[in-house]
Amino acid sequence: MAVSAVDGSARAGTVEVARGAFHTPCFMPVGTRGAVRTLSAQDLDDLGCEVALANTYHLMLRPGAATVEQLGGLTGFTGWGGLFLTDSGGFQVFSLQPKVDDEGVVFRSTYDGSTHRLTPESAVAVQEQLGADIQMVLDVCPPLPSPPEAVRLAVDRTAAWAARARRAPRSRPHQALFGIVQGGVDLALRAESARRTVELDFDGYGIGGLSVGESRDEMLPALAAAIEHLPADRPRYLMGVGDPIGLVEAIALGVDMFDCVLPTRLARHGTVLSSEGRYQLKNAANAADEGPLDPACPCPVCARHSRAYLRHLLQVAEPTAPRLLTLHNVAWTLALVAEARVAIGAGTLDRLRRDLAAVWT
Amino acid sequence: MAVSAVDGSARAGTVEVARGAFHTPCFMPVGTRGAVRTLSAQDLDDLGCEVALANTYHLMLRPGAATVEQLGGLTGFTGWGGLFLTDSGGFQVFSLQPKVDDEGVVFRSTYDGSTHRLTPESAVAVQEQLGADIQMVLDVCPPLPSPPEAVRLAVDRTAAWAARARRAPRSRPHQALFGIVQGGVDLALRAESARRTVELDFDGYGIGGLSVGESRDEMLPALAAAIEHLPADRPRYLMGVGDPIGLVEAIALGVDMFDCVLPTRLARHGTVLSSEGRYQLKNAANAADEGPLDPACPCPVCARHSRAYLRHLLQVAEPTAPRLLTLHNVAWTLALVAEARVAIGAGTLDRLRRDLAAVWT
Repeated sequence: MAVSAVDGSARAGTVEVARGAFHTPCFMPVGTRGAVRTLSAQDLDDLGCEVALANTYHLMLRPGAATVEQLGGLTGFTGWGGLFLTDSGGFQVFSLQPKVDDEGVVFRSTYDGSTHRLTPESAVAVQEQLGADIQMVLDVCPPLPSPPEAVRLAVDRTAAWAARARRAPRSRPHQALFGIVQGGVDLALRAESARRTVELDFDGYGIGGLSVGESRDEMLPALAAAIEHLPADRPRYLMGVGDPIGLVEAIALGVDMFDCVLPTRLARHGTVLSSEGRYQLKNAANAADEGPLDPACPCPVCARHSRAYLRHLLQVAEPTAPRLLTLHNVAWTLALVAEARVAIGAGTLDRLRRDLAAVWT
Repeated sequence: MAVSAVDGSARAGTVEVARGAFHTPCFMPVGTRGAVRTLSAQDLDDLGCEVALANTYHLMLRPGAATVEQLGGLTGFTGWGGLFLTDSGGFQVFSLQPKVDDEGVVFRSTYDGSTHRLTPESAVAVQEQLGADIQMVLDVCPPLPSPPEAVRLAVDRTAAWAARARRAPRSRPHQALFGIVQGGVDLALRAESARRTVELDFDGYGIGGLSVGESRDEMLPALAAAIEHLPADRPRYLMGVGDPIGLVEAIALGVDMFDCVLPTRLARHGTVLSSEGRYQLKNAANAADEGPLDPACPCPVCARHSRAYLRHLLQVAEPTAPRLLTLHNVAWTLALVAEARVAIGAGTLDRLRRDLAAVWT
């Protein structure tokens, strides 16, 4: 990646992949099954979204990787011209208590109970079929807290699988491939995992296995321990983090990329992200409020609709409500990350961190 | 209304109301609770929708007419700058088996079981509060078939209530007020109801109590019998009809305005309107179909997305699917009505009717 500005450990820049480039820091909305829930390709364009995440586990089961490939990969399939990062499927699979051995994982489909297998090599092949711009290696992601031996095993197996993914036959070598650092909240293990992953020379580095049950005070040192061993010229991607403080603190440590279902999931449950913190729109206080969701937000929903109207739609279960709240929460999160990028350029990231810390926990 | 073209009994024109004008024939999407299900105000703009329907019964209960008024009426409340027609609430109320007497109706809220009363006068007052551009009188709408005495009573009571609505105190007389013709499928009663309603001199005339259980062969003569007695210089609104053949056959008889939940309801259940007829998108035949929902449709959904992708979203219950199908079905219906308008200008409405009859039943 090309770094255009630094502010302490934080950096702003541009990552080039075969089909285009994107600006960092970058927040990627999650389009699990080929769409960000409630949103369309047009919406992603309108939001100025540059990269979206798609889910290997779900798409390999429905509609199937071969179908997505036949329909032109994620770009042709979804009709969205932006960039796609695909997870390896590991994160979802590990939540299903799969059978894991050195070879790979065997799991059951949540759709029909059928049995499927993922290996480091097949995860690469499936993500090639999906047409990812950036694919992630298959890793082992233990929940936290986990016994030390489980975290150690995850580090070792992730490293072994990363080596196999790196050597896996590729028909589309222009797709970027990212390794993943594990190690729980053990600083030495994080450092070791980072070093072993970097040795394999990936196009970028995911930091996985965080935001899986630990506190932020445990997460940030573990993140810093990993980043210390990552090369400055490759993008760093903190997987599954998207809360405002988490984003900005990780950016301050040098993270470039994020994905998280938080903004979209909160929206569907009526929780609004705003410059004054988050709040539940269903609260009666909003029933006659003519103001926007967030007076400081430039998104089209805040430009046009009142809290009172959106609360009403939510209260009577109109599906327009989750969509408009999703648009707002995603726009709000993208704007926060864009603000961090500007702050890095201006050398004022610390002020942004303080401002956020005064509002958010 | 200003009639700009006629083709047989069909006419194309412009209806002016206080806040603006709209072109006829006109299809009004139904925004029951203040939003067309799954769509936003921006979507209605993008669809080129000129008039939408809102539901008095639902809005008077949630969020309440006073709240809508306080938030700027339907325009301020919804953030949509187009025109609103509000039904009187009668149609929904009669589906709830209310207590009806000469004075009005007493019904229970579907939201909390509370008891409410609607009279011809209060229906006018509530629709004033809602800020309708066009409001409808409270009428009695019996299902079909109904015993002759029920249809006769509906005609008499509708006429008496229309007279009371016409005399009701008005604080916003610039709002248009439409009478409603009843009479079931009895041609003489339809003619009588039309004459009695026209005597009261409304801004326009709804034809109600059709498409409520009768066949199209029963509906169209009853419609014609009513229209024969309606003045040429006032808009005619066939309530609750929105299927392609129903629309075009009614336009041929001289109807100007329509509303119907059909395009939106079908969309939410996966049924697509197309130039080749309607079909269920979930059918396996669409699983790998790279073509659009309708090759002849110029809507943004057809321009961008394949049947295969939309079917996938539907199959995995992504809420993006009902929204995109709703956009298509509403765009398709608006385009059909626009095509009828062009055909009236060109004197080719009969050809459009034949073309549609070859595809639709």
